[in-house]
Amino acid sequence: MAIKPVPIEKAYRLLNHGPTTMISAKHNGIENVMSAAWVCALDYAPQAKLTIVVDKIAYTRQLIEKSGYFAIQIPVAKQAELVMAMGQSRKDVPHKLDRLSLFYQDGFDLPLVRDCAAWLICKLIPEPHNQQAHDLFIGEIMAAWADERIFADGHWRFDQVPDELRTLHYVAGGQFYLIGKGINLA
Amino acid sequence: MAIKPVPIEKAYRLLNHGPTTMISAKHNGIENVMSAAWVCALDYAPQAKLTIVVDKIAYTRQLIEKSGYFAIQIPVAKQAELVMAMGQSRKDVPHKLDRLSLFYQDGFDLPLVRDCAAWLICKLIPEPHNQQAHDLFIGEIMAAWADERIFADGHWRFDQVPDELRTLHYVAGGQFYLIGKGINLA
Repeated sequence: MAIKPVPIEKAYRLLNHGPTTMISAKHNGIENVMSAAWVCALDYAPQAKLTIVVDKIAYTRQLIEKSGYFAIQIPVAKQAELVMAMGQSRKDVPHKLDRLSLFYQDGFDLPLVRDCAAWLICKLIPEPHNQQAHDLFIGEIMAAWADERIFADGHWRFDQVPDELRTLHYVAGGQFYLIGKGINLA
Repeated sequence: MAIKPVPIEKAYRLLNHGPTTMISAKHNGIENVMSAAWVCALDYAPQAKLTIVVDKIAYTRQLIEKSGYFAIQIPVAKQAELVMAMGQSRKDVPHKLDRLSLFYQDGFDLPLVRDCAAWLICKLIPEPHNQQAHDLFIGEIMAAWADERIFADGHWRFDQVPDELRTLHYVAGGQFYLIGKGINLA
């Protein structure tokens, strides 16, 4: 398994098909990870941007606001139970991170969850009105990487990987769908 | 095929798994429809909201800004060519809507595309800074409906329909994936 950089202007393609994500952040040495379905591409050039929705009760929110950075990771089917576990609040499950294996990429002090399909590191573009009124945060994508078995040359390769490496798409109440068959109309 | 209302507070579930959409709008009798992958739930209660990203060059954008309303529809696999066609600009393909069959729901002057899986009617929440700086529009969900074969009782039923009724998830360059297998961790 090799993790390869994804060009910034193509990073939106990691999100375009609507996968469920996990958001991570760190401030003053405290790391956290939360599951999030409401993450969306916002632009690819000249500034690559994305939006995330993070409730005021989320522990991760203050880490993002204080540090000015967050990371998005795109988990795969074999991590479905982990995604459910990271959907619980750290306040209710103080040791929830014990289930995770985290790693760091050079140059960024942001914890990343191992064994995901892809990762995007974002710098918060402060928009206090959006954050307060809508729980909506905008990030500039500073770097991105993907597991080259699953995403390479700017495209997902789901038809070439086992089901356990397909992305997860959450509905509600523990119900997910995996991404399915590809079609190409080019 | 029966179209049934979806309770407003559950309408986010139509978008939660990240389907590619088509956005429609109407002003002064002029209708338009555009394909859009960057549509995301923003809240479910007390006010159900979603975000859409619409470029300044999109013809639909002025219809939304002038009328204050738009609709989101969630197309299915058999409509993939239609989704590609609606991704072209009306400026380049003036008669692109000739390919579509539109209908209206009582009480809303918004064209809806037939044979989709679901529809959401939204009232624009004006946020001029977001619209200008980020091409980001926020809508309040006023009504929603779904094809009850595909979405019923607050949940998608993709495992019970043929592939042609699965939602589409666009990547880039004509590459889509259909939504796939369900898993339930409840």
